[in-house]
Amino acid sequence: MSTDTGSKPLLLYTAGTPNGQKVSIFFEELKAAYGLEYDYVKIDISKNTQKEPWYIKLNPNGRIPVLIDRSRDNFTVFETAAILVYLQEHYDKEGKFGFDKDQDPNLWSESLQWILFAHGGVGPMHGQAAFFRRFATEDVPYAKTRFTNETKRLFGVLEIRLSDRDWLAGPGRGVYSIADINVLPWIRVHEIAGIESLDEWPHVKDWLERAVQRPAFQAGVKIPA
Amino acid sequence: MSTDTGSKPLLLYTAGTPNGQKVSIFFEELKAAYGLEYDYVKIDISKNTQKEPWYIKLNPNGRIPVLIDRSRDNFTVFETAAILVYLQEHYDKEGKFGFDKDQDPNLWSESLQWILFAHGGVGPMHGQAAFFRRFATEDVPYAKTRFTNETKRLFGVLEIRLSDRDWLAGPGRGVYSIADINVLPWIRVHEIAGIESLDEWPHVKDWLERAVQRPAFQAGVKIPA
Repeated sequence: MSTDTGSKPLLLYTAGTPNGQKVSIFFEELKAAYGLEYDYVKIDISKNTQKEPWYIKLNPNGRIPVLIDRSRDNFTVFETAAILVYLQEHYDKEGKFGFDKDQDPNLWSESLQWILFAHGGVGPMHGQAAFFRRFATEDVPYAKTRFTNETKRLFGVLEIRLSDRDWLAGPGRGVYSIADINVLPWIRVHEIAGIESLDEWPHVKDWLERAVQRPAFQAGVKIPA
Repeated sequence: MSTDTGSKPLLLYTAGTPNGQKVSIFFEELKAAYGLEYDYVKIDISKNTQKEPWYIKLNPNGRIPVLIDRSRDNFTVFETAAILVYLQEHYDKEGKFGFDKDQDPNLWSESLQWILFAHGGVGPMHGQAAFFRRFATEDVPYAKTRFTNETKRLFGVLEIRLSDRDWLAGPGRGVYSIADINVLPWIRVHEIAGIESLDEWPHVKDWLERAVQRPAFQAGVKIPA
C-alpha cells in the first residue's frame, strides 16, 4: 500500500535507480531555484511493490517513478521524461531548465529530440546491458556484447553532439536543462552496462563532470535516502 | 548522397519500418485533413545509407526517419516521436490529432506519457524481439523469450488503458491522435516480435482495427513505395 503521509504540494514515488534519480535531481534543482517542496516515497522494487494493484492504478506500466501533483487535483504522471517535461512546464516559472514551445519552438523541439533519443535509446540499451550482466538467470555473452556495444555507440552519438557545446540543448554552447538531466544519471553509472571508463568519449566525460559539480545533482542522486 | 529533388514544403527521409510508417501515416492524415504536401526519400537501410556522413549530419544517431522542414529554414527533426510532436504543433492547425499544452495541459501531458511509454518500451522491446528472431547471428532462446514476453507485457499495459476507451489519449473515450499513431505500426506487425495473434488483448486488437480502417493509415503504411 501507499505510504503517502506528507503534505507538500508534490509527491514522488521513486527508487534509487537512474530513472528515479533523474526526477529527484530535477526536484532538487527546482528546490534550489524556486524553493519548490516535494515529498517522496521509496518504492522497494526488490519486493515488486511497483506491481501491486494500488501502484498499477497510478502507473499501469508498474514502474518507478510516478509523480502526484497534489496542488493540481492529484494529477498523476508516469514515464520519467514525461515527469521532467511536466515539472519544467508547471514549476520552472523562469524557464531556467527548459525551453518555451511558443517562444522558442525550435529550441523546444531540439530539447525534445534529445530527450527522446535518450528515452528510446540510452535508457533501454543501457538497461538491457546491465540486465544481462547482473540479473539474467543465464549467461548470454552474445546479448552482453550486443547491448554494451549499442550503449557505447549511443555514447558516441552524444560525443558528436557535445563536440562543440557544453549541454545537449539550447543556443550557443547550450544550457543545462531537462535534456541533460534526462540522460546523465545513465552516463554516471556506465560501469553497470559493462563500460569501464568514459575516456573514449572525452566530451561526454567533461559533460558529466560539469553536472556532477552542481549541488542539486549531488543531492538528487542520493534520493531516496 | 541525398536524393533531395522535390520542392514540397516538407521532406521526409524514411524506410518501410514501423518507425518510418508512423510519420508517413501522420503525413497522410495531415494531407487528408489540410492538404499538407510532402516529399519523401527512401533510405536503403539494408545498405546502411543512414550511416553515411551526409545523413549523420542530419541525425547523428544514424536512424530513419528524419524530417526537413523546408518552409522553416530547413529545420531538421530526428526521433520518430519528436517528428510527430513537431508536425502536430506546426501543421495540425485545428488540433485534430493532438492536444494544446496551454489550453489542455493535462491532456497534453497524458498524450506525452503514452508517447513516451511506447517510445521507451514498446518500440525498443518489440525491436529487440524481432532482432533476436530474425537477424541475430546466433540463436539465443533466452533473449527471444525475454523480449517477446516483455512485448506481451507491454501490450497488456495498453489493454488496461484501452479497457474503457477507444484511443490512448483525450477526454471520454479518447480521440485518435499522435499518441495512437506513435505505437500502432508496432502493434500491426506483432508477428515479427514472435506474437502470433492479438486475441489475448481484445481491446488492443479492436483499437488496431479501428485505426486500420482509416484511409490515411492504409496509405501511410505503404510509404515509401
